Formats: sequence, C-alpha cells, structure tokens
Amino acid sequence: MYVHEVRVRFYHTDGMQVSHHANYILWMEAARVEFFRWAGVSLNEIMADGIVFPILHAECDYLHSSRYDDLLEIRTKLVRLSRAQIVFRYEIFRPADQQVIARGLTRGTFTSVKTGRIIRLPQNYYERLAALAEPEDCE
Amino acid sequence: MYVHEVRVRFYHTDGMQVSHHANYILWMEAARVEFFRWAGVSLNEIMADGIVFPILHAECDYLHSSRYDDLLEIRTKLVRLSRAQIVFRYEIFRPADQQVIARGLTRGTFTSVKTGRIIRLPQNYYERLAALAEPEDCE
Amino acid sequence: MYVHEVRVRFYHTDGMQVSHHANYILWMEAARVEFFRWAGVSLNEIMADGIVFPILHAECDYLHSSRYDDLLEIRTKLVRLSRAQIVFRYEIFRPADQQVIARGLTRGTFTSVKTGRIIRLPQNYYERLAALAEPEDCE
Amino acid sequence: MYVHEVRVRFYHTDGMQVSHHANYILWMEAARVEFFRWAGVSLNEIMADGIVFPILHAECDYLHSSRYDDLLEIRTKLVRLSRAQIVFRYEIFRPADQQVIARGLTRGTFTSVKTGRIIRLPQNYYERLAALAEPEDCE
Repeated sequence: MYVHEVRVRFYHTDGMQVSHHANYILWMEAARVEFFRWAGVSLNEIMADGIVFPILHAECDYLHSSRYDDLLEIRTKLVRLSRAQIVFRYEIFRPADQQVIARGLTRGTFTSVKTGRIIRLPQNYYERLAALAEPEDCE
Repeated sequence: MYVHEVRVRFYHTDGMQVSHHANYILWMEAARVEFFRWAGVSLNEIMADGIVFPILHAECDYLHSSRYDDLLEIRTKLVRLSRAQIVFRYEIFRPADQQVIARGLTRGTFTSVKTGRIIRLPQNYYERLAALAEPEDCE
Repeated sequence: MYVHEVRVRFYHTDGMQVSHHANYILWMEAARVEFFRWAGVSLNEIMADGIVFPILHAECDYLHSSRYDDLLEIRTKLVRLSRAQIVFRYEIFRPADQQVIARGLTRGTFTSVKTGRIIRLPQNYYERLAALAEPEDCE
Repeated sequence: MYVHEVRVRFYHTDGMQVSHHANYILWMEAARVEFFRWAGVSLNEIMADGIVFPILHAECDYLHSSRYDDLLEIRTKLVRLSRAQIVFRYEIFRPADQQVIARGLTRGTFTSVKTGRIIRLPQNYYERLAALAEPEDCE
C-alpha cells in the first residue's frame, strides 16, 4: 500500500461547501502515479517506450464529505496485475478524525501509442509492479 | 431518456490527446441537472427547501476515447427512484461515428442541509421525477 | 463580436457558492474556439498543419460573482491580429440582470509543433480572422 | 516570499502535452493559502469570522510550458496590503532547469459574508500578514 497525501484546496470545494466528487478521480490518478514511482516505474519512461495506460473503468463510493483544508491520505493498493490490466483500489482516509471518507477503484490497461491496441506490459515494468501487488479477488 | 449535448473543449483533453476521464463525471452532472430541469424540477428550488443531493456512488466504463471538438450526447435515464435514492444511468454517445464511447452510473440521495441526515424527497418533486423514470433492476 | 453561451454548472461553484474564478479562463477558451469556428477556421485543421497556439498572457477582472445555473454570455472580440499574435477581449455578461460580471483578455501566438518556434499564421487563416477583427489600441 | 511546491499531474496536461494554462490560476490559489498559513492566518478562521476574500483580478504571463511530472515552485510574495486589498505576485519556477516559466498576480479583497460589502481586515490578521509583506509599487 502506498499513501499519497492530498490537501483539499478551495478550488476543490463546491457550492455545498464540500469537495466536489469529481476531484476524487483526480486524486486517485495522482496517487496511482506516486504508486508507480514508488515501484521505480516512471510513466514518462513507459510513454517514451510508446506505451500509454488509459483508464477503462473508474468508480468511487462516497461515505463522508471532505472540506476545505482537510488533509487526506489516498491509500492505494495494486490489487490485480496482469500483462494487460492493472487494477488499483483506493481508500481515502482523513487522519484528523480517523474516517475512511471514500473508497475507489480503477482498472487500466496498457496500449500501444502506434497501433492503439492493447499490448502486454514489458517484463521489466511488470516485475517491479508485481513485487508490490496485494492481489485480491476482484471482478 | 434525456439527451444533453456536450462539446469536448481543449481544456478537457490531456497529454494523451483524448478527453481526460474525470470530465465524464462532470458531464454526467450537467446531464443530470438538465434531466431535473426537463422534469420541471429546479435544483435551486430544492436547495431553497433545505435539501441537497450528494452523490453516494459514481462510476464510468470507458469504451472509446473522445477527442478535442467532438460533439457528444449524454443520454441520461432515471433508472431507480425512491424517496431516499436516485440512480441515473448514462450513455455517452458520439453521433459522428455512432459509437457509445462510455457508460456511467451515479447514485445520489437527498439530505437535509440542517441536519446532514438523509431525508425523503417531498411528494411534489418525487412525482415529477417518477413520471420520467425508466426503472430497471440495478444493484 | 461573437457571443458564446455558458451555463454555470454545480461543479463550477466553490465553497463561497459562486463560480470559482479559474472557470472564467476555461470559458474564455471555449468562446475563443467558437470565434474561430465562426470565422471558418477550425483549430483541428490548423493543428493538422503543424501549428499550435499557446496562450502567452491571460487576465480577468471579476466585477460581480456568478452563481449556480446562471446563464452567461461570453462576448468575444478579436482586438488585435498580426501574423504572430492574436489578442481577444471578453466581456462576461449575464442577461438576467444585464450585468457585465467580468472582463478578460488573452494574448496568444502561433507556434510550430516541429520547432517550438513562433511562426507566421498562413494567409488563408489570417484573412478569415482579420475580416472579423475589431482592432483597438491595446498594450 | 513563500515557496509552495506543485507537481504537474497528468490531469493538468492538455492535448498540446503541456500544463493547461488555467491550472496556473489554481496553483496560485494553493500557494496563496499556504502563504496565509505561513503567516499564521487560517482561512477557515477568517471565514468563521464572516469574512471571505474574493479575487478581483488575476493574471498570468506564460513564458515557458511545463510538462507532466515537472516539479514547480510557486514563489509567492505579498506585494501590497491594505485593510481592503491584498495583492500577491507569483513566480512559477522550475528548479530542474532553473527557468521561471510563468509570472502571475492576483488582487483580492475582504468581504463580509452577511452584507456582501467590502470590509476592513481585522487588526490581528492584518498585522500577521503585514509582517511578511514585501511592498512594491504595483498598479
């Protein structure tokens, strides 16, 4: 599990004075990138190899709202990894009151920039990520 | 079903030269509001009654990417309505090539501004929305 | 002058229950693109010619706030055009109360994708845009 | 001067594969808040006192583009402070190549939530901010 910290900015809030729900999708992206970095995998390096990693599915359950200036932890687990798919699970946790405020999941794939087709993740990247995976049975 | 049109703006695109996936969550929000308007229900009016409608769950399946300047239809169905919950299903359709490029779902609730608790949607709003519902069995 | 309409969405609002100021920069971008379209100039076509048009300067004066569901007109004027620079002025107007709520300005340039250098806008695009310019003395 | 660090996220990039220009406005907001925090002034505390601080003017000069994963410093100076106005100047600096990539400015004011009118910033906040000001002649 990798923990990425996020501060709720004023521009994240909406007219209900809570973080707008779309921001959680952005925070999960940032957390995912930091997970890759933690694994020693640079997305710039992968992209230079002609591989991109579009998101096929994203979802989020909102349990409690977060507010301006809250400090949040995006606790990120790599729960499924194959050569063609990568599934992350996220827990958005607020240390101040020890609440899990949201739970999210994304499923991505690896695609060739050239052909637009799904490709297998090269072994060197695969190994580094697999070493940090915490596999679970997820659909 | 209500059809809300969206134009992909340059600021929606990301470094992969496609619409960033978080924007679909925003487009679904706009479509949802327009669905309410179509039902004769103004969110400003509901909020003036002290009711807000937070999102409890949002998800999206990304089937094809969309690109700068694409014209998209957000085809929105109210698939489940109770006094406490409202579920919308969305199909993001691109008329130019007749492709469904994404499918989404949101589940919301009605909450009192005062107490922060879930409340029952008043009858007058309920009826107008129920008249347009296309119920389906969804989890 | 080209008038582009924008609806203030809930996701545009912030915790002060007004449109967050950064959105005006996005709305000006959308209005600018529609101005180009009005001139018969497609940005996709220009980009296919290897030309991009980064923003060098953007500014906005906020006179009144706008709120959720407001309908706004982005009144866009091309006030300066040379082969290397393009300056737009924007008035954000709310018809409901006849208020100018903001005034903005952007200065852009034309740049070669290949070299990253500023280039002269080809004659065919220049003429179409120049025909709609309302030049003024602006710094 | 206060230095706030920002990482360029993938969602900050646009189809030109650089940070979209509107994000600089957001980064300046985050930097401004951190400047207040550095001065011992909590915006939540000011808001609890019924004071909000809308932006009256924002501008940015874009000198160089930034790219995905760049680490940026938002170097923030309070250059003008009166009881009714607060002007910040920002230099967006990229340590990796020692480039100033953008310069921005915002002018804000202090407004009563109750009346919507401009009000004077209370002495206790004023003093803490004034102690960190680096006044300059700015319009």
